[in-house]
Amino acid sequence: MEVSKILTYCNENRLAVCPQGGNTSIVGGSVPVLDEIVVSTELMNQIVSLDDVSGVLVCEAGCILEDLDNKLSKLDLMMPLDLGAKGSCHIGGNVSTNAGGLRLLRYGNLHGNILGLEVVKANGEILDLLSMLKKDNTGYHLKHLFIGSEGTLGFVTKVAVQCPTKPKTQNLAFLGLETYENVLETFKAGKGCLSEILSAIEVIDNESMDVVREHLNLRSPIGEYPFYLLIETSGSRDEHDQEKLNSFVEMALAKRFILNGTVVTEPSKFKVSFKSSEKRYLEHQRKIPETFKREGYVFCYDFTLPLQNYYKLVHEMRQYMGSQARRVFGFGHLGDGNLHLQISIKEFNPDILDYIEPHIFNRVKEMKGSISSEHGIGFLKAKYLSMIKDPNAVRLMQSLKASLDPNGILNPYKIFRS
Amino acid sequence: MEVSKILTYCNENRLAVCPQGGNTSIVGGSVPVLDEIVVSTELMNQIVSLDDVSGVLVCEAGCILEDLDNKLSKLDLMMPLDLGAKGSCHIGGNVSTNAGGLRLLRYGNLHGNILGLEVVKANGEILDLLSMLKKDNTGYHLKHLFIGSEGTLGFVTKVAVQCPTKPKTQNLAFLGLETYENVLETFKAGKGCLSEILSAIEVIDNESMDVVREHLNLRSPIGEYPFYLLIETSGSRDEHDQEKLNSFVEMALAKRFILNGTVVTEPSKFKVSFKSSEKRYLEHQRKIPETFKREGYVFCYDFTLPLQNYYKLVHEMRQYMGSQARRVFGFGHLGDGNLHLQISIKEFNPDILDYIEPHIFNRVKEMKGSISSEHGIGFLKAKYLSMIKDPNAVRLMQSLKASLDPNGILNPYKIFRS
Repeated sequence: MEVSKILTYCNENRLAVCPQGGNTSIVGGSVPVLDEIVVSTELMNQIVSLDDVSGVLVCEAGCILEDLDNKLSKLDLMMPLDLGAKGSCHIGGNVSTNAGGLRLLRYGNLHGNILGLEVVKANGEILDLLSMLKKDNTGYHLKHLFIGSEGTLGFVTKVAVQCPTKPKTQNLAFLGLETYENVLETFKAGKGCLSEILSAIEVIDNESMDVVREHLNLRSPIGEYPFYLLIETSGSRDEHDQEKLNSFVEMALAKRFILNGTVVTEPSKFKVSFKSSEKRYLEHQRKIPETFKREGYVFCYDFTLPLQNYYKLVHEMRQYMGSQARRVFGFGHLGDGNLHLQISIKEFNPDILDYIEPHIFNRVKEMKGSISSEHGIGFLKAKYLSMIKDPNAVRLMQSLKASLDPNGILNPYKIFRS
Repeated sequence: MEVSKILTYCNENRLAVCPQGGNTSIVGGSVPVLDEIVVSTELMNQIVSLDDVSGVLVCEAGCILEDLDNKLSKLDLMMPLDLGAKGSCHIGGNVSTNAGGLRLLRYGNLHGNILGLEVVKANGEILDLLSMLKKDNTGYHLKHLFIGSEGTLGFVTKVAVQCPTKPKTQNLAFLGLETYENVLETFKAGKGCLSEILSAIEVIDNESMDVVREHLNLRSPIGEYPFYLLIETSGSRDEHDQEKLNSFVEMALAKRFILNGTVVTEPSKFKVSFKSSEKRYLEHQRKIPETFKREGYVFCYDFTLPLQNYYKLVHEMRQYMGSQARRVFGFGHLGDGNLHLQISIKEFNPDILDYIEPHIFNRVKEMKGSISSEHGIGFLKAKYLSMIKDPNAVRLMQSLKASLDPNGILNPYKIFRS
């Protein structure tokens, strides 16, 4: 196989390689730093097999996520992950970065959904870990070494994925809340009432809504509140899901967890406009840098935090920044503890960057959070690895790297600085 | 910490250690082979923290699965796994063996549900991988090295688990079918109709039902058929789930996928007796060796197979055994491709064992299945590892073992023969 030949040659000649999929990384994980040879998955774009009974898809690493989802859709199946870059990102890159995205709350992460992998090691050796089975407890579960290791331990060439049934219907509720405590109460009640149909719980603070209002000309359909929750359900029977969602919102209003709320119960014009707002809201969340251009310069962070500390960090950073920031705002996938914290300033200023970092990463660490929720370490965050991780864990990572790629040819300067 | 001190001492003095949890392994994974020192998790039985909003549980490795489930139940949460040995198995052992069980179809495997681990390495070094976050993409995902490696790479001492919302209601359908093709058609249709509420699809062949009839005095509530399916739904609204299940069974009857079917729609006496039958059926599935005593000697296999080959193996083995076997029968978690294939003979006979093995493992391999679906390799299947695995993968396993446990003190003779 070609990748094996390329890596064998590069390894023998000590040539560094940068594996590249759709090149959608925002931490510089898929771009060469110095003189690495870019090996792209672009031509590895074939579906190997697709079983519509078991829902098992086997494909090459260069398949584009959205193409796979479209093909599966015809069989009432779907990919267990969805993300903003789906139109260009490759499944091999998704696996290598353990991509999270919008379906994680409901369908879990890739460590749970990837059944098998074919991987080429740095020395060109092909590892056949391409199991298509949901249960296989025979020996070490090696595939996980390559899920989320950002192409530094091996080159993923084929992927077997367990694909869930595509939901037939989606419904939305948009809620206005007074405090972050109310947000947590509503979250807990929502998990109880909506349970199996809950597919997303997104939180938006009023400052984020201001940005949306100003730059996307979108208005909250329910008036202004300090916090908003967008709750999405996905299921197989529209009338059942609507009934559940309506009674949940009624209960939350009665208990004063929420101050206002609207549910989409009819396939009306309102639904269309509301859904498209939601879509635009999600797009804005995905394409922050472009959308926020008029905001000045925006520092965008992607953290996971325990729920009790989730919004505390936004409050704290707002105070810490004072008048140095135009705005400090936060929104994100509350259901996964994933916070997109944004700090906008008039124009880029390295002093402000130094003021923010590493302070903010330290605070995340102290709050038992993660400084990279979905996007990996890549090149840009490599210098913080030793700050945030247990030193014994870092040593084990380094020894795995040394053992699997002794010449260090695979994606150098990523994850580890040297 | 004590485990660290014990391992440090044992490592320095080259003393072999057998980590032991509830000692419920059926492949000899948790018993010493020669003179290993048994280190038990029994006294490590404390809950460290439990957050009823996020559903994150952190506990010590010696907590008993059922105890955890009972504690969670009071908060409307549950463990993402359930298995026959829940009354005695320890969560540390579940993690070390990547235990599957009854909830896997719905909630996925432990690689998806375990958020973090604390692990002691062979040299006594403590690895703090105890993340409590659903999304954390910072460096290699080391915890997966210890999930399913059967205590040979490290000693799991603490576990963080993502716990799902406990369903409020369960419903059952019991279906009679003519052919295995009908079984697959029904399975596919069930995934489509029941989607988010589907929690188990179990298949039972008529030969298995004969055994149940003879030894447990249970009768099929719908008459005799070549195949039976037991479909379980779990959800948050009883009337919604019943409606979905009823219309699914009506549709399957109308399309002639099934010949007969009964659904539990009322909390009546029937339900109680049916549920207890189901429970007894599940118990019989769990406690095969005892239940089948009167059957003579029973060879019990735990395979995963691609669905198109799932029942082919039973047919084939029935022919292969001919009159040498009393019965060859198969049942299992169809939803996960997990087949419990049983061969009963009058009394144990080593010639028959040699006739069956390794032939049966070879066939499973040729059919792209797994010879150990849920139970691991342990001691008993170690000799087959090189037969069933890619040689490059076995070499990588061995090099991981050598690097993490250079003196080979952790659970020797397990997974690898030497």
